[in-house]
Amino acid sequence: MIVKLGANRYGKAETRLVHVRRDGPVHHVKDVNVSTSLSGDMEAAHLTGDNSAVLPTDTQKNTVYAFARRYGVGQIEEFALRLARHFVTTQPSIRHARVTIEEYGWNRAGPHSFVRHGGEVRTCVVHHDEDGRTTVLSGLRDLVVLNSTGSEFHGYITDEYTTLQPTTDRVLATAVTARWRHAATGSSSYAKSFEEARRCLIDAFAGTHSLSLQQTLYAMGERVLTTCPEICEVRLSMPNKHHFAVDLSPFGLDNDNEVFHAADRPYGLIEGGVLREDAPDAGFAWE
Amino acid sequence: MIVKLGANRYGKAETRLVHVRRDGPVHHVKDVNVSTSLSGDMEAAHLTGDNSAVLPTDTQKNTVYAFARRYGVGQIEEFALRLARHFVTTQPSIRHARVTIEEYGWNRAGPHSFVRHGGEVRTCVVHHDEDGRTTVLSGLRDLVVLNSTGSEFHGYITDEYTTLQPTTDRVLATAVTARWRHAATGSSSYAKSFEEARRCLIDAFAGTHSLSLQQTLYAMGERVLTTCPEICEVRLSMPNKHHFAVDLSPFGLDNDNEVFHAADRPYGLIEGGVLREDAPDAGFAWE
Amino acid sequence: MIVKLGANRYGKAETRLVHVRRDGPVHHVKDVNVSTSLSGDMEAAHLTGDNSAVLPTDTQKNTVYAFARRYGVGQIEEFALRLARHFVTTQPSIRHARVTIEEYGWNRAGPHSFVRHGGEVRTCVVHHDEDGRTTVLSGLRDLVVLNSTGSEFHGYITDEYTTLQPTTDRVLATAVTARWRHAATGSSSYAKSFEEARRCLIDAFAGTHSLSLQQTLYAMGERVLTTCPEICEVRLSMPNKHHFAVDLSPFGLDNDNEVFHAADRPYGLIEGGVLREDAPDAGFAWE
Amino acid sequence: MIVKLGANRYGKAETRLVHVRRDGPVHHVKDVNVSTSLSGDMEAAHLTGDNSAVLPTDTQKNTVYAFARRYGVGQIEEFALRLARHFVTTQPSIRHARVTIEEYGWNRAGPHSFVRHGGEVRTCVVHHDEDGRTTVLSGLRDLVVLNSTGSEFHGYITDEYTTLQPTTDRVLATAVTARWRHAATGSSSYAKSFEEARRCLIDAFAGTHSLSLQQTLYAMGERVLTTCPEICEVRLSMPNKHHFAVDLSPFGLDNDNEVFHAADRPYGLIEGGVLREDAPDAGFAWE
Repeated sequence: MIVKLGANRYGKAETRLVHVRRDGPVHHVKDVNVSTSLSGDMEAAHLTGDNSAVLPTDTQKNTVYAFARRYGVGQIEEFALRLARHFVTTQPSIRHARVTIEEYGWNRAGPHSFVRHGGEVRTCVVHHDEDGRTTVLSGLRDLVVLNSTGSEFHGYITDEYTTLQPTTDRVLATAVTARWRHAATGSSSYAKSFEEARRCLIDAFAGTHSLSLQQTLYAMGERVLTTCPEICEVRLSMPNKHHFAVDLSPFGLDNDNEVFHAADRPYGLIEGGVLREDAPDAGFAWE
Repeated sequence: MIVKLGANRYGKAETRLVHVRRDGPVHHVKDVNVSTSLSGDMEAAHLTGDNSAVLPTDTQKNTVYAFARRYGVGQIEEFALRLARHFVTTQPSIRHARVTIEEYGWNRAGPHSFVRHGGEVRTCVVHHDEDGRTTVLSGLRDLVVLNSTGSEFHGYITDEYTTLQPTTDRVLATAVTARWRHAATGSSSYAKSFEEARRCLIDAFAGTHSLSLQQTLYAMGERVLTTCPEICEVRLSMPNKHHFAVDLSPFGLDNDNEVFHAADRPYGLIEGGVLREDAPDAGFAWE
Repeated sequence: MIVKLGANRYGKAETRLVHVRRDGPVHHVKDVNVSTSLSGDMEAAHLTGDNSAVLPTDTQKNTVYAFARRYGVGQIEEFALRLARHFVTTQPSIRHARVTIEEYGWNRAGPHSFVRHGGEVRTCVVHHDEDGRTTVLSGLRDLVVLNSTGSEFHGYITDEYTTLQPTTDRVLATAVTARWRHAATGSSSYAKSFEEARRCLIDAFAGTHSLSLQQTLYAMGERVLTTCPEICEVRLSMPNKHHFAVDLSPFGLDNDNEVFHAADRPYGLIEGGVLREDAPDAGFAWE
Repeated sequence: MIVKLGANRYGKAETRLVHVRRDGPVHHVKDVNVSTSLSGDMEAAHLTGDNSAVLPTDTQKNTVYAFARRYGVGQIEEFALRLARHFVTTQPSIRHARVTIEEYGWNRAGPHSFVRHGGEVRTCVVHHDEDGRTTVLSGLRDLVVLNSTGSEFHGYITDEYTTLQPTTDRVLATAVTARWRHAATGSSSYAKSFEEARRCLIDAFAGTHSLSLQQTLYAMGERVLTTCPEICEVRLSMPNKHHFAVDLSPFGLDNDNEVFHAADRPYGLIEGGVLREDAPDAGFAWE
């Protein structure tokens, strides 16, 4: 029997970088979590432990910190692009770099004082390879939203295991994980693009009278695409965070969708993509 | 050898209640996590399994949901008081009730649409006993704050295990857990009191030029007490979330408190209380 | 601009099922977490909220519980296969099912008493589609292993951001996530296969003098393939849980790899696959 | 209004220490998480930022590592005692030290290879003050146990909010957190004492036909006290991890306690102590 090495990559995960920029007495903070992942000529490292093609993960971490000092952080997509290009350009054995960054938001509480936002996390995933191909995904996770009415669910398949009753009024709540693909690299203002896409997601969630969480998901993706010309594809993962109306009839009380048990598990999980008819090929963007 | 039962209590933890109040098309949401804990004549339950003095935890949960329907939730302190009094008043075998509630904030995104706040969690702990004694703690946790300058640390003890260098400029960051005791019950507007106390904590953190995290902690507690006459004691637990300036000199770069590694563990942990000279006895408030 | 629905799936995640089988007074426990995910004719559900092709996630959950009663759980791969085939076979609109299961181990402490194992979690991922194609992955996660010597790291690339010193003796520790693909369906004793694969992973980790974590990863995958003929591909994800020897020289103490700081973040992350030269095409197995 | 400093303490939390002891080619590993907390003359630090009485938390961390090199770790109670005595003895301003340690178990997989146990965590809490008073608690957490029968619950109070049905056969499952107080310091073999106490907890859980979780809790504490003469008090915190028999009747299936939904929240929470009639005063042991 002959075995061989399959797909592989390696890197430094979760380098926690906080960057302070000083405009005189007024400071600005960027709080990010950077993960770099490289691939290339790694057969020898795997088969014989010959590390001559390996740029150590410790060096990747150092590079993150040094680049923050040298160039600042700026928009996370730009910082990720800079890192990814650096690794591929400077090391012949590194043929592909993926850089993912999470950013945690802070609100100002004084010239050099901040309160962590605590809400959703902004994300990006950048790929760059030796042939100069580059892809950029932006996104967010943990955007928790709830509609207290305006959601129905009926007309579904029933079989011998069905007990669910159809409803014309339920709570719809989810924690949105969204990522969207930029059609081109470098043409965007990533800050403005992010704010618009986020606003679309919330507005479409709030504004859609929902017959299914799938319908809401599609409306959210569609809204981003129709509003943001620089974005060509959106992928969403949305758990259905079930809120069950509690049966209060044993206590002589009605419950007209007022009192809910917020359940943990199990939960529905709806995943789907929306893209332009003419979206360019995604290549390795989503890997 | 003779053994005996010591202190004990039992209850239902983490009843996740979401309450929707409808003002016509405009809805309001309360999202809370309620834990009830009772004690009383529980020897028989422990020694022989005789449950005749036990109000089941399932019933405690039902009561939470039924009370939400019957009375609404309102301020969490008031909801906790109502529950605690109910258990002690209606069950002779229950001599003491403790009710703790966490509240998660939501921002409005439409008439019946909401985005979860995601920042700090509001808390309360209420005790009520058969003699009518009642205590109320309000508080918050996970209020994450950071000063990017205005913090020093020097003049400390040195011994043979000292390697820390004194500093006149460092990042100071912490995740505040705070609880404060109300001097009396029922006299407060808990909503207004909470907003004021929270504001004091943030303002004192941001406004204190800090020579130690202890000094900052004390200033925060003192600010609450001098601003909020209804509060007689504050207790704070504040991890020192270390931000280490990265040594970039191997790369020919300086680092004048610009680039930091945000460390996970270990962390300093500073705990302390501030109280009025004339604070009434705390009794069982902090148990 | 015209947009369209991309890849999508939906299902019930994390149905927590505990099954008790009674052999007279001696009981047996299976503790699993089942997630089902279906795809098929879902355009209408997304575009118009027409749910006539949707088998509700609530029904999927019911099916999990009913099947546990009807057939028992048995090996998780077999339970997943039964569920996946059921959904695709009985619902024309469901063209593809993916079922993932996690199993938590319990040790016996009496005829009907158990202590949870607490170590690694056994996993599987099964796909089945309308054309009868079926794939089975088995695996585990959170297998935490450590070698206190027998690990080196040197000979790597150095650049202007290198500070890491080469070493000929370090601690190597990781939390193994491994999944392996069965070459065929139904021919295996999944219980025996799992035990052998797990044993191979541990033995190869312990028995490999390591020049890089990549080399150890490859050795682990190779060992599984050379020992278990029913397995055709292994994929591993292994964080390098760094253990840094503490510099004790300021205290007049040496530290010959005796005292370590176990760091949280950042960490190296090594991911790679090993497969047979003649492995059949993976199809959708890893999706 | 005059405010004052209340109770306070500070220290370094979660110093993650791994110690390797080499017996020639055979190695031994200790994996612990050490938290130190000191109190004493801290008024100046809080009120004016004068740190002259403060032994920095960084120095506390260094001491942990240096002591591991100098003395080894041994039993965690002994390591905690050594640290607590050191801080109080060497620093006049430090009047009280509390040291808590968690230990993670590893099983041997080779001369220098280990697999993490993953089950319950062993714990201790040691106090030592300037007057030479010392207390030692040993314990464990996350010991997850389950009885699949032999548990009843009936005869409880019913009121207008009762819906629970009495049962003579249910699953009883919990995650035990236990701490026990040693009557004296230094007389024990902590290793042997721990093994016996742990064994008592499991045996009493498995061997008690339970009419309430309170009864089981008491039996567990009593078993420790009657078996281990060196222990004078036991405190237990035991969540009732509810396992609900699923109603399968809609599918034409019975369910004679075979198929359960393992619920997350809410959960019962039972806390209680058992102690000897003649137990010495606990002092600050449980703080």
